[in-house]
Amino acid sequence: MRALRLTAWQSEPVLAEVEEPVPGPGQVVVRVGGAGACHSDLHLMHDFRPGMLPWGPPFTLGHENAGWVHAVGAGVSGLDVGMPVAVYGPWGCGNCARCVLGAENYCENTAAAPVPGGGGGLGLDGGMAELMLVPHARHLVPLPGGLDPVVAAPLTDAGLTPYHAVRRSWSKLPPGSTAVVIGVGGLGHLAVQILRATTAARVIAVDTRPEALSLATGLGADLAVPAQESAAGEIRAFTGGRGADVVLDCVGSDATLTLGAACGRPLGDLTIVGLGGGTLPVSFFALPYEMSVQTTYWGSRPELAEVLDLAARGLLHTTTTTFPLAEAADAYRQLAEGKLTGRAVVTPATP
Amino acid sequence: MRALRLTAWQSEPVLAEVEEPVPGPGQVVVRVGGAGACHSDLHLMHDFRPGMLPWGPPFTLGHENAGWVHAVGAGVSGLDVGMPVAVYGPWGCGNCARCVLGAENYCENTAAAPVPGGGGGLGLDGGMAELMLVPHARHLVPLPGGLDPVVAAPLTDAGLTPYHAVRRSWSKLPPGSTAVVIGVGGLGHLAVQILRATTAARVIAVDTRPEALSLATGLGADLAVPAQESAAGEIRAFTGGRGADVVLDCVGSDATLTLGAACGRPLGDLTIVGLGGGTLPVSFFALPYEMSVQTTYWGSRPELAEVLDLAARGLLHTTTTTFPLAEAADAYRQLAEGKLTGRAVVTPATP
Amino acid sequence: MRALRLTAWQSEPVLAEVEEPVPGPGQVVVRVGGAGACHSDLHLMHDFRPGMLPWGPPFTLGHENAGWVHAVGAGVSGLDVGMPVAVYGPWGCGNCARCVLGAENYCENTAAAPVPGGGGGLGLDGGMAELMLVPHARHLVPLPGGLDPVVAAPLTDAGLTPYHAVRRSWSKLPPGSTAVVIGVGGLGHLAVQILRATTAARVIAVDTRPEALSLATGLGADLAVPAQESAAGEIRAFTGGRGADVVLDCVGSDATLTLGAACGRPLGDLTIVGLGGGTLPVSFFALPYEMSVQTTYWGSRPELAEVLDLAARGLLHTTTTTFPLAEAADAYRQLAEGKLTGRAVVTPATP
Amino acid sequence: MRALRLTAWQSEPVLAEVEEPVPGPGQVVVRVGGAGACHSDLHLMHDFRPGMLPWGPPFTLGHENAGWVHAVGAGVSGLDVGMPVAVYGPWGCGNCARCVLGAENYCENTAAAPVPGGGGGLGLDGGMAELMLVPHARHLVPLPGGLDPVVAAPLTDAGLTPYHAVRRSWSKLPPGSTAVVIGVGGLGHLAVQILRATTAARVIAVDTRPEALSLATGLGADLAVPAQESAAGEIRAFTGGRGADVVLDCVGSDATLTLGAACGRPLGDLTIVGLGGGTLPVSFFALPYEMSVQTTYWGSRPELAEVLDLAARGLLHTTTTTFPLAEAADAYRQLAEGKLTGRAVVTPATP
Repeated sequence: MRALRLTAWQSEPVLAEVEEPVPGPGQVVVRVGGAGACHSDLHLMHDFRPGMLPWGPPFTLGHENAGWVHAVGAGVSGLDVGMPVAVYGPWGCGNCARCVLGAENYCENTAAAPVPGGGGGLGLDGGMAELMLVPHARHLVPLPGGLDPVVAAPLTDAGLTPYHAVRRSWSKLPPGSTAVVIGVGGLGHLAVQILRATTAARVIAVDTRPEALSLATGLGADLAVPAQESAAGEIRAFTGGRGADVVLDCVGSDATLTLGAACGRPLGDLTIVGLGGGTLPVSFFALPYEMSVQTTYWGSRPELAEVLDLAARGLLHTTTTTFPLAEAADAYRQLAEGKLTGRAVVTPATP
Repeated sequence: MRALRLTAWQSEPVLAEVEEPVPGPGQVVVRVGGAGACHSDLHLMHDFRPGMLPWGPPFTLGHENAGWVHAVGAGVSGLDVGMPVAVYGPWGCGNCARCVLGAENYCENTAAAPVPGGGGGLGLDGGMAELMLVPHARHLVPLPGGLDPVVAAPLTDAGLTPYHAVRRSWSKLPPGSTAVVIGVGGLGHLAVQILRATTAARVIAVDTRPEALSLATGLGADLAVPAQESAAGEIRAFTGGRGADVVLDCVGSDATLTLGAACGRPLGDLTIVGLGGGTLPVSFFALPYEMSVQTTYWGSRPELAEVLDLAARGLLHTTTTTFPLAEAADAYRQLAEGKLTGRAVVTPATP
Repeated sequence: MRALRLTAWQSEPVLAEVEEPVPGPGQVVVRVGGAGACHSDLHLMHDFRPGMLPWGPPFTLGHENAGWVHAVGAGVSGLDVGMPVAVYGPWGCGNCARCVLGAENYCENTAAAPVPGGGGGLGLDGGMAELMLVPHARHLVPLPGGLDPVVAAPLTDAGLTPYHAVRRSWSKLPPGSTAVVIGVGGLGHLAVQILRATTAARVIAVDTRPEALSLATGLGADLAVPAQESAAGEIRAFTGGRGADVVLDCVGSDATLTLGAACGRPLGDLTIVGLGGGTLPVSFFALPYEMSVQTTYWGSRPELAEVLDLAARGLLHTTTTTFPLAEAADAYRQLAEGKLTGRAVVTPATP
Repeated sequence: MRALRLTAWQSEPVLAEVEEPVPGPGQVVVRVGGAGACHSDLHLMHDFRPGMLPWGPPFTLGHENAGWVHAVGAGVSGLDVGMPVAVYGPWGCGNCARCVLGAENYCENTAAAPVPGGGGGLGLDGGMAELMLVPHARHLVPLPGGLDPVVAAPLTDAGLTPYHAVRRSWSKLPPGSTAVVIGVGGLGHLAVQILRATTAARVIAVDTRPEALSLATGLGADLAVPAQESAAGEIRAFTGGRGADVVLDCVGSDATLTLGAACGRPLGDLTIVGLGGGTLPVSFFALPYEMSVQTTYWGSRPELAEVLDLAARGLLHTTTTTFPLAEAADAYRQLAEGKLTGRAVVTPATP
């Protein structure tokens, strides 16, 4: 079969012929209905050199995947051929205290994972091929009624990441509270929708781009604030002076972290979702009392099931542009050039 | 001033002339903009005899109240004359472990409350008069932006009660879960809206009356189930066989409690909100494993602030019919005869 | 190898020769260092007839097991031969929402479990043999530093069950709160210790037997109350009139459930752990407001790891009497006759 | 009566004659049995100048107070003359969302507090006098059975602060987890005891001083680690490589914050309790994933009741040296010179 492969660090991916995978004990092969093309893949192609990561090329790209069960290995139960499934992306050791709760994104024994700290599309073969080998049946989540793998694929990462960040802060988001989403891009526009669907908090969106702010308003944000010096003051005024209970920084630059700290409420959360490379100097009087600062990384397998349920109920909308596998390299080219509207999803197989 | 008074057990209320109240230290007098006429008031008029309650007539009726601050006593801070406020109804001792958290509905020292287990409109003078004495400033909650006291008044009881019942079960209501509301009346139709506004759970409404079921569907219930023998089976089928995560029984009869237990999921909640007088025999194998059965009674003061915020944002709708104070007795008559649509609210004063 | 087998309903178990198990894909064979003899096994021998359970004889007894990894099947990682392990007893489908969190005690798809609602020693071969087949590696929990399988075995059930019941109520047990343990037997005496080790709540023990009450006091209970009519009053007095925040009923008879409801506090928990066959009629005014009544059944796999950690640190003590496999039938005989002190543990193999 | 007064910034306190306070409506006067002399008072005497704080001298010192109710104002209920009480120190507005839950330490409307951001001994008259005016009855917490005001006084600050920091992290401290206390001084040695009393977590103490480390071990710490370069490695090794679930930094310097981040576990807590003036640069890859960093400041009124309960049960020990009021200035002198063992408590009145 053909697959879009990264064959070396600092190279463009190529469409190559590879062997069809066969599932070993406990394993599953998935026919890939949708494989998201993610910005972090551009990173993979351009910004790493041998030795910087514990794994490397060659491997098939695509770490946001959904499709249908194609074949199951010995000892696998609960999955029938043809069943539509999403692939939970972070593959851990399966045995540590985090993995046994389905939080393989925080695996504590990555040395015992299929590849240390990687997974399908990240060192191991991913979903930009007709078939994808999933090393453990537990990494599959059945798609709820009628959800299209093309829609589901990007949600396994771009949906799951903000979902986890919002969900961990639910207890701070009762009616009367306020959540701020900084950066209304791929993750942020889903964060706005997740907040609307799962809480009654007021939602404030912050971005530099007017079109991102109108997108946020259209998705139900109560207030859209341009990312400029006055932003913290506007947020504080909107909250009656109290500040925001939860800030989700989907950018993560120095400037956005500074804004997050400046507009927050004592006992609130400032969660760093974006990989913007910024640093926030935390000291006793620099932040509101007991405002918690933390990063989040991806989400858990049970949370993925919840994200998919939201989407199946029509509570999460995302725009996708599909590409046949033969044009997958083109999808990345358009992504790199900023020409895409919404998420690019490669569709290697059809039902 | 005039007030609608219950002057003796087992009598009809009468409009009588009373002294205007004057606030003592820590107290507040409220100009009443709205005073809800509640079914439980009919109970008060007809079903009690001397000695059955620790308090009794004469007193002014009306335990669901909102209006404007009229006068404050010595030592009161944070309340200005004219400020629109709702009156938190359950008046406790103010010092026990529950009261200090604002959960005066569960006061543990009712002997030290203004009246043991009662309050304004329940042994003490309530809101069916132009002015109402509130014995502690802490019982007032400022009305959020623009909320009409006529709308706010019934929410202090008919809104707060289901709100508390839903809120305590939030952690069991993530996306993918199901909540059942049995009885779509005064409390139940608000329960449906509260579930929709604060969770992404699927909502199933159960009632005997077709019009109640259409009301529920119109308010966003995902499924409306007639209260007949097949109901538990329909609910179980809708949930893929798992059962409902949370059941709010707003009726509380033998039949509805039996249904609640029959349609529930292990680890779920069955919360008895309605005073239907039913009994559920609980034993090891009679209910799903670890399904919790409990009553709830009213709610806390911070929760009242949250209910009012939901209403101010337009997320809670309730139909009201207003009556001037002079016609308050008539409001109760129509209520008793089942002639009213929505909640009757008496409006003793205007802004 | 030899195994203690139940060969038919309503019969005594016999020592028989069986084939040594061989692990299939994903499976593990454990050398059994300790297999607890549990009261519920006497039930199995005497009180069931064909068709009453979805599974039946013949099978090897023993559902409380610990030992050492003997052999692993294909696809198993993280377990080395010789590693000391406890066997998590409730074996579920592995795929439902409960199983993926390690709560296989509440599996929602028991039809897909190895045997529906059963497990090793309960329909499938258990631990009263030198070797035991464990159908999924996920059912094994490594023993923390130095913990003897003889000590660990009974904790997988008699320890895990009260541990789960206590743990779910932690949020109601801050300093100043009170927990009541009714029935200081096999589960109850561990409940007292678990409360002492994991909370600062006051602990009250209730039992009919003076020696059980002294055992409780010796284990750190703050008050020991004879199970007689005055018990609820004594508990209420000890708590300053408030009532107990949490009641763990390890008996579960009509009388103990009535006591639990009578001595409880509003917002408390009444958890039915014991299988005494009692029924509690729950209605609006029969129990303290919002006291939750629920059963619990066994516990989760992550909780088993926590129980074992408590024991390894010396915070859980239990008395055991060991029996070689050849005398296992005798262990049950002594158990039936009430002649044993502490838990009988059969020791088929040694390190 | 006489009182130890700070009469000007940058001066030594003096014993002066002042009027006896008289309680207004809602107020209470306390006879002071114990008033703790706190390091932060030395700060007050030496490090501030006019305008740096929203309040200033002259006022009576002492913000850690306990004693007996001496007189109550109009409208006060639930407090009888002679009742032993502790004074909750942070005095807020009483009306904001935090104050109504008893968390006046995080008051959101300090402009409406008795003094903005201050309190008794901090701008208003404190406890270093025979009588102390408490502006709201809600600031008093009854002392549990037999607890000496001399013992209770320092717990209102030095006990409440670490108690709150531990309590907020309880859910991360089940059996098998590890808590690190950095700095075994006035707060830290209580943090060790609070962890031991309320959780089954392993406790690691870190300090530069060998005598502080032996104190920690004597109080039940499982491991004592000298504060040197190898500390993070030692902690990681002790936790099997996972890192500490919760770090309480009671020092708060650059070095201790760096250690806290280096020894922590993903999903853990790093709580800055100490005012050491350090800064931690937080960025995406600088800390373990989702480790939350936050400050805490003092604690809530309900938490104070819990701290006092722990002490009354003998679960918190602290060494005190008492001084009559006439020698209060000497207490501060000895404190400044580091000559004191344990906490200095001034005893203006006796029962």
